[in-house]
Amino acid sequence: MSETRILAAYIVRGRYEEIPDDVRHEAARSLVNFMGVALGGSVDPAVDIAIRALSPFCGKPDAAILGRVERLDPLHASLMNGISSHVDDFDDTTPQNYIHPTSPVASAMFAYASANRVNGRDFLNAFVLGFEAESRIGNAVFPAHYDAGWHITGTAGVFGAAAAIGRLRGLSEQQMVWALGLAGTQAAGLREMFGSMGKAFHPGRAAQNGYASAILAESGFTAGERGIEGPRGFAAVQSAKHDLSKVTVDLGVDFNLRRNTYKPFPCGIVNHPTIEGAIELHQQHGVRASDIHAVRLQVAPLVLDLCDQQNITRGLQGKFSVYHGAAVGLVRGQAGLDEYTDAAVNDLDIKRVRERVTAVGDPALTEDQARIEVELTDGRRLSWSVEQSLGNIHRPLSDRQLDDKFRRSAGRALPRSAADLVLDHCWHIADLDNVSALVDATVPVVQRA
Amino acid sequence: MSETRILAAYIVRGRYEEIPDDVRHEAARSLVNFMGVALGGSVDPAVDIAIRALSPFCGKPDAAILGRVERLDPLHASLMNGISSHVDDFDDTTPQNYIHPTSPVASAMFAYASANRVNGRDFLNAFVLGFEAESRIGNAVFPAHYDAGWHITGTAGVFGAAAAIGRLRGLSEQQMVWALGLAGTQAAGLREMFGSMGKAFHPGRAAQNGYASAILAESGFTAGERGIEGPRGFAAVQSAKHDLSKVTVDLGVDFNLRRNTYKPFPCGIVNHPTIEGAIELHQQHGVRASDIHAVRLQVAPLVLDLCDQQNITRGLQGKFSVYHGAAVGLVRGQAGLDEYTDAAVNDLDIKRVRERVTAVGDPALTEDQARIEVELTDGRRLSWSVEQSLGNIHRPLSDRQLDDKFRRSAGRALPRSAADLVLDHCWHIADLDNVSALVDATVPVVQRA
Repeated sequence: MSETRILAAYIVRGRYEEIPDDVRHEAARSLVNFMGVALGGSVDPAVDIAIRALSPFCGKPDAAILGRVERLDPLHASLMNGISSHVDDFDDTTPQNYIHPTSPVASAMFAYASANRVNGRDFLNAFVLGFEAESRIGNAVFPAHYDAGWHITGTAGVFGAAAAIGRLRGLSEQQMVWALGLAGTQAAGLREMFGSMGKAFHPGRAAQNGYASAILAESGFTAGERGIEGPRGFAAVQSAKHDLSKVTVDLGVDFNLRRNTYKPFPCGIVNHPTIEGAIELHQQHGVRASDIHAVRLQVAPLVLDLCDQQNITRGLQGKFSVYHGAAVGLVRGQAGLDEYTDAAVNDLDIKRVRERVTAVGDPALTEDQARIEVELTDGRRLSWSVEQSLGNIHRPLSDRQLDDKFRRSAGRALPRSAADLVLDHCWHIADLDNVSALVDATVPVVQRA
Repeated sequence: MSETRILAAYIVRGRYEEIPDDVRHEAARSLVNFMGVALGGSVDPAVDIAIRALSPFCGKPDAAILGRVERLDPLHASLMNGISSHVDDFDDTTPQNYIHPTSPVASAMFAYASANRVNGRDFLNAFVLGFEAESRIGNAVFPAHYDAGWHITGTAGVFGAAAAIGRLRGLSEQQMVWALGLAGTQAAGLREMFGSMGKAFHPGRAAQNGYASAILAESGFTAGERGIEGPRGFAAVQSAKHDLSKVTVDLGVDFNLRRNTYKPFPCGIVNHPTIEGAIELHQQHGVRASDIHAVRLQVAPLVLDLCDQQNITRGLQGKFSVYHGAAVGLVRGQAGLDEYTDAAVNDLDIKRVRERVTAVGDPALTEDQARIEVELTDGRRLSWSVEQSLGNIHRPLSDRQLDDKFRRSAGRALPRSAADLVLDHCWHIADLDNVSALVDATVPVVQRA
């Protein structure tokens, strides 16, 4: 009994008709969220730099990059889509394994669909299967794997991209076994990169490497047959503890997409309850930066494990600073993309408040909860408790809220009318004859002289 | 004090003039060995498949692939050179860390030098520095990292390629810190792939990814600053035990190249003493396959950890079968590339003998030692002990033996006269005005109609 082979068999055989309606809808929600976030991130300097650096090595420009006018070969387009869709830390999260699951899978798939004819049902089916492969492998190694310092979005994501592209290519079961093996032997990404462009590189490389794994396996490039469960395979090597039964239990019955969540704020998800509490205090009391004497946070201990950076200078660092999250919520009453720029991190009011925040970990709090107390210069104390933060699995963003999030983010790359067309295509992706129409709609139209 | 930064500073500043003569000579020996092995491996189906699969994605064909007529972009040429130079398991080994060190570094460097003007001294200097970076990081995490199941040639190799290419590109210290970080966050390669094409993929991807890390860092793509030593960095995440002092101690004084070794047989190095003993018995007693009733091996316990495959059908598996090594030595009196083909593994005489081999681990034996006893069908018993196998650090291949090995291996890709030109260029690489002359000389001349 090989988990790799059982999973491979499922990926090559799973059919669109077998996917329940609620899972299809959640897949569309995931793609709406992904696409908005990717378009918002497509203007980030990390994407500019990666395109500039790697263009001299890129192949035939068969694929569009989401939100960009440049075209690259589909492998490099996968990389760029992955960077775009994660660089703002605004993409989706499956809380049970901390994976940001759509980026590695969809980044490769849209690059593939830009260069190859794929109809919407086949696309959605392969997306669900890739999402499932990635999630199940992640579930099997979580939490030990993540706690060790792996950025699980990269390490599990590469399996998802290999599975999805392999399915679109029509791999045999044996080829899929190899594709998963080649994916596993490229599973990489260190949490030490958090706060740098290296973090967004992870899902990008996962998309690119998973795609390449499928292509190599299709041509007969062999891999170990037990890439996931073998004694020197992914689970054994990259996780001190693992439960391989999670790879195969209830395959085709239980869908991890049902547990996907979408962020209201573009930063580390564990900061969200703090931010929500800070915004609440701003709105209730009209708090201003100059009024604030001290801010005291009580948060789940993991928050301080992940987001304990206080002395920061870059927007990317702000995403992993619970202090910054509290400060922008209190000072500006919002925490959108504009609150995580270098300028916002160095804004003197925000900096002053950020430096006045102290935080303690409280094991009684979950990662969806936070308590915030503000001591004003006049001696008054304001406080707020968040019991269940917006965007968590019990309080999900509605379809309408996802639309709003999409428009705010996509508006960075596209005019409103173009963004609305992309949004409509995402919601109705299963009806598309050719998904390249969706990809093409993301490309900005440039007036030429 | 950051090991990443200290190492980066050394890589960007180390000069050719500071490299001792014996180290320069060992660098040339390493390149001679590498080039012969790469040319021998360039005809392997794994290389054919990888080129066929990935060519549609490759960029401008600026770089030659060693031993091949196809040209690819330099990143993909790095990948192919890495596969060629490791697929026969015939490349060099630093016994203190089990790294096959030249493949990841030189594979990227020759691809780079094919597309960019590099003089021989700069090339040799960057090679020594890349070798040093890779070796020192490997030393810091060995043996726990390897024992956990990592193919250290891939995981440490990516740092070496990043360092060497970064040096050739003239990276600043800060850029080199990022290059090492981006390399570390791509450090991958599972020992579960041993016995498949996935194994040779590791140094290839390490070469390609290290090269890309340098290019990205040069353009300003940022990474974590403490990729090696940070709390979520390479050493902490990928090795249960590590000694980071080994990254920096005696930098510029102690050179790991001095501890490089070269294989006489194209297979897992721990099989070598067994093979040598088997060849000795063949030569001394004219043993024939039909004479052999039983073969008993006593070997270091690690041999059975790595090479315990007896029921095999593929040449690549034979490389990790101590049973196969014993069988070919006894039956053919040699263990060259021809003894590790699918045909040799399925040869009925060799198979019959292989199935009669038993092996026990003896902790009193080192990995350079083995005892072999053959029981003949007439009842006679022959035995031989190897105390220190050929090619180990105390009994190295001479320059002349390296020439012979080069010619046998390179002869698979090139006629003798062409191979001799390449060999001469490798020995005198420091004198070359432009290393592309060496790369060009490895390309077979094809008669065109």
